[in-house]
Amino acid sequence: MSEIRIPYQELVDQLTSILLKYDFCPERASLCATLFSKANLDGVPSHGLNRFPIFLEMINQKLVDAQAEPELAGSFGSFERWDGNLGPGNINAHQSMDRAIHLAKTKGIGCVTIKNTNHWMRGGNFGWQAIEKGCLGICFTNTKPNMPAWGGKEPKLGNNPIILAIPHKHNPLVLDMALSQFSYGKISTYLNKQEAMPYDAGFDLSGNLTKNPETILSNEMALPIGLWKGAGLSLMLDMFVSVLSDGNSTFDIGKQKTETAVSQFFMCFYLPKIGITTYPDDKIDLILQDLKSSASFGKKSVRFPGENTLSLRMNNQKYGVPVDPDIWESILKNY
Amino acid sequence: MSEIRIPYQELVDQLTSILLKYDFCPERASLCATLFSKANLDGVPSHGLNRFPIFLEMINQKLVDAQAEPELAGSFGSFERWDGNLGPGNINAHQSMDRAIHLAKTKGIGCVTIKNTNHWMRGGNFGWQAIEKGCLGICFTNTKPNMPAWGGKEPKLGNNPIILAIPHKHNPLVLDMALSQFSYGKISTYLNKQEAMPYDAGFDLSGNLTKNPETILSNEMALPIGLWKGAGLSLMLDMFVSVLSDGNSTFDIGKQKTETAVSQFFMCFYLPKIGITTYPDDKIDLILQDLKSSASFGKKSVRFPGENTLSLRMNNQKYGVPVDPDIWESILKNY
Repeated sequence: MSEIRIPYQELVDQLTSILLKYDFCPERASLCATLFSKANLDGVPSHGLNRFPIFLEMINQKLVDAQAEPELAGSFGSFERWDGNLGPGNINAHQSMDRAIHLAKTKGIGCVTIKNTNHWMRGGNFGWQAIEKGCLGICFTNTKPNMPAWGGKEPKLGNNPIILAIPHKHNPLVLDMALSQFSYGKISTYLNKQEAMPYDAGFDLSGNLTKNPETILSNEMALPIGLWKGAGLSLMLDMFVSVLSDGNSTFDIGKQKTETAVSQFFMCFYLPKIGITTYPDDKIDLILQDLKSSASFGKKSVRFPGENTLSLRMNNQKYGVPVDPDIWESILKNY
Repeated sequence: MSEIRIPYQELVDQLTSILLKYDFCPERASLCATLFSKANLDGVPSHGLNRFPIFLEMINQKLVDAQAEPELAGSFGSFERWDGNLGPGNINAHQSMDRAIHLAKTKGIGCVTIKNTNHWMRGGNFGWQAIEKGCLGICFTNTKPNMPAWGGKEPKLGNNPIILAIPHKHNPLVLDMALSQFSYGKISTYLNKQEAMPYDAGFDLSGNLTKNPETILSNEMALPIGLWKGAGLSLMLDMFVSVLSDGNSTFDIGKQKTETAVSQFFMCFYLPKIGITTYPDDKIDLILQDLKSSASFGKKSVRFPGENTLSLRMNNQKYGVPVDPDIWESILKNY
């Protein structure tokens, strides 16, 4: 099936009008629709429109409370703790990053944790949000158990996506990555193509590394990045975020039937408030120029995280946002 | 060669007496010697005594200034920036973490960056330092270029070690890892044994993954954890730490003849100051119990970061600290 292109504003308006039927107030419907649409706009439909039907289903099942707003659980200088009250994950995350930005803009550093929230969909959105306000940003979330511990043969760790974002006048950088080498969604696409993964992507039933997508999907044994290192990092990020938010850990989330009530962490830095009055565009330029000058194995130069996003975004704004036609049809028909 | 065991206090005293000859004042000689000794005490001689001769050599070459103390470059609420003045890296890092602890204990969150500092030797020391004061701790450093970008054929990225530490009454956790899958030191040990690495550890001259230690060492093509993911993470951590410290980036460090004047980041959280008055030992216990209950491929249960450190430390305190006899002899003879 070939993708179709929908004008960005039409996409936002269509999703907004659907969300209004799901008990969202106009302002939150618009924000939620915008966050879904931005994922497709930036070339990440897997965490955008493709998840919209599941998101609505979670509202129907009352796992996501469309009207719930986050509540402040405590404010401590540069640090705030929030309770997400099981509201829509992307709206909660957007507000959390907004608070981290606000704290950073007034105090130099701002840190926000939120418990009882839901899947934030595309985490990269919140990195771009920090960048648009001139802040360096970090955020990460825990998830249900979906990776094995090192040497383990059942999922005990979350793939706990982490986002790091750095503003730059021409080349802002956003790294948006889960701690599994490949997502289950990506592994499924290889299974559908009946192809092996390009790199080791998980474990077989004997604990050996494998590129076989069917094997990995059947036993939920996706590979943590860096083998034991990513497994350790996943555990530590889960503990940090669940302890600092006073919220659920990956273990707690795994006891539920569905992935909900997750814990998230957001942090921003604003340079003028830590005595760096001229933004170091030049320093970042030098690093990127050096990186791009690297001798490479392919014909193309090496890339940095987020390198193509702005041009892709501009292109999609001009020619329409690519959407999966089946998803789009099902959204128009069913909701 | 078999290792020998030296009583911990004898080790500290011996190193202290040497450092006194290298222009350290008594207090700083003792701290520096303790930090070197603790690495061996906790089973990490590669970043302890094994580096002591190189450390002294860097003082001789005036790359490390034994007497230089860090200076405050600016203080902004929960955030401080410091200049390490090219002093001893482990002392500078210890003081930086001390400041982050102090800030966290008064404000809930504390963040310290330091520029113009030197290799901190064993980063895990500073994770344990946070734990001993009841703080969750994070620190990371940049390094000289020693890993390729994804698709690149020359070192452009640092392996930028990162440490995460979480206190617990019985099972404190410390993850201390570089962003390369294996250190060059570890790869060398396989070359010396004439053995292949157990997992892909770098790239060959055609850009393919390889387990051949000789190939990897000859072209400095160590593998970032998670392939493109660790490469991206390395770049982002380097930018964060060099921007937030107003210090050198991996690119800047690579322009020098020797790895010096690096940039580091330290952060702590103190729960009673963010409204969490009872330390969540129980929550962490549940996570660890679940993890340890994982079905596993080997005979042993899966492990968590730092699991064996306390028992190893106790054992080494009792029976003496293992040191490499050649290193020990050379230290006694030459310094």
